[in-house]
Amino acid sequence: MNKFDYRIPYADTDKMGVVYHSNYLKYFEMGRTELMRQIGYTYDEMEKQGFYFPVVSAQCNYHAPAHYDDFITVETTISELKHVTVTFSYKVKCNDKLLVTGFTKHPLVNYAFKPTRIPQNIRELLIPHIESNL
Amino acid sequence: MNKFDYRIPYADTDKMGVVYHSNYLKYFEMGRTELMRQIGYTYDEMEKQGFYFPVVSAQCNYHAPAHYDDFITVETTISELKHVTVTFSYKVKCNDKLLVTGFTKHPLVNYAFKPTRIPQNIRELLIPHIESNL
Amino acid sequence: MNKFDYRIPYADTDKMGVVYHSNYLKYFEMGRTELMRQIGYTYDEMEKQGFYFPVVSAQCNYHAPAHYDDFITVETTISELKHVTVTFSYKVKCNDKLLVTGFTKHPLVNYAFKPTRIPQNIRELLIPHIESNL
Amino acid sequence: MNKFDYRIPYADTDKMGVVYHSNYLKYFEMGRTELMRQIGYTYDEMEKQGFYFPVVSAQCNYHAPAHYDDFITVETTISELKHVTVTFSYKVKCNDKLLVTGFTKHPLVNYAFKPTRIPQNIRELLIPHIESNL
Repeated sequence: MNKFDYRIPYADTDKMGVVYHSNYLKYFEMGRTELMRQIGYTYDEMEKQGFYFPVVSAQCNYHAPAHYDDFITVETTISELKHVTVTFSYKVKCNDKLLVTGFTKHPLVNYAFKPTRIPQNIRELLIPHIESNL
Repeated sequence: MNKFDYRIPYADTDKMGVVYHSNYLKYFEMGRTELMRQIGYTYDEMEKQGFYFPVVSAQCNYHAPAHYDDFITVETTISELKHVTVTFSYKVKCNDKLLVTGFTKHPLVNYAFKPTRIPQNIRELLIPHIESNL
Repeated sequence: MNKFDYRIPYADTDKMGVVYHSNYLKYFEMGRTELMRQIGYTYDEMEKQGFYFPVVSAQCNYHAPAHYDDFITVETTISELKHVTVTFSYKVKCNDKLLVTGFTKHPLVNYAFKPTRIPQNIRELLIPHIESNL
Repeated sequence: MNKFDYRIPYADTDKMGVVYHSNYLKYFEMGRTELMRQIGYTYDEMEKQGFYFPVVSAQCNYHAPAHYDDFITVETTISELKHVTVTFSYKVKCNDKLLVTGFTKHPLVNYAFKPTRIPQNIRELLIPHIESNL
């Protein structure tokens, strides 16, 4: 599991006075990037080797809003690992209060965007981070 | 059903050369706003009367990417109407090709953000737009 | 001069209840794209031919705010045309009220991002749209 | 002077493979927020006391692009302090390389958005951070 901290900027708020809901997908991406860095294989490095993790589905459940200047934490785990597809799951919290949960599902694709079996070396890095019941 | 057209700006693309996935939640919002306008009760007017439709859950399924300068259409319907909650469903297309589907779920809340039964006059405006099998 | 209309989504507002200031650079880009389309040489086509217009400087002056659901108009002209560089100028209005003015400056660069003299055929398309005193 | 570090997310990039230019106004805002925190009077606190710093003009000069996963630093200072208006100036760097410079100008306004003389207690906090030749 990776924990990533982020301070909410004014830019992310809307006229309801809270974070606009689409921004949580960006926070999920930030968490995913940091989990990959923690694993020892950055997403940036992965793209430079010709592999991509496009998003094929995403879900967010909004329990409570984040506000301007809140210092949030994004907890990221791997909740499912198949031959081609990885599912990352997320919990966004502020002072231990749960704000938003969700997941994103990503097939591995190659430079030509063809779905590709996840190579054994990457698979072995991901396995220790599987937490099926986040 | 409402159809809303939108030209993809450079701002919405990412380094993969396609629309960054969180932007579809913004396109859904644009479609929802236009459906409300078509119904004859704009969301802007609704907020001025002290009612809000915050998002409690959202889901996106990405079938094919949109690109810079694509002219997309967002088709919006109401897929579920309960006492307090409305679910809007969306299909994003480009030249009749289906790109993204999804839904967003919204409880009606009052000025104090308390969930509130949808008033009969609003309910009657929404009912004709229910399409359960979008 | 090109006039481009845009309806302000909730996504573009912030907790001050108005459009967050960085979004006007996106509206400028939308106006620039439409001016190029009007000229008969879309920016998309230009990129496919290996030319780019990166931004080297930008300025915005905020006179009055735009709000959610406002229907704004972006007026775009070319205010300066040099050997390598084009400056686009913008006026954002709502119901004829001037909200924001600004400009963006762009050198033409080739596929290798080397600054390049603007080809004569592109220059001739741009010249009729120069309005030095917007 | 305040130094604020930020990791570039995928969300901030565009199809040119670099950070989309409007995002630097968000980075400037993040820097400004952190300078205020360093000063000992957060912008969040200021708004809760009924004062706002809306942006009346902004300028960006783009020297070199930032890329995905770059770890940038935003250096923020106060470059001008008048009776009503503060100008913040910014340098965005990556590994000591200068990427973007700019400024934003803000009048102090009260709860009714009337321009207001900056109170003496706030003025005294701001003065030590004036660096006229950033």
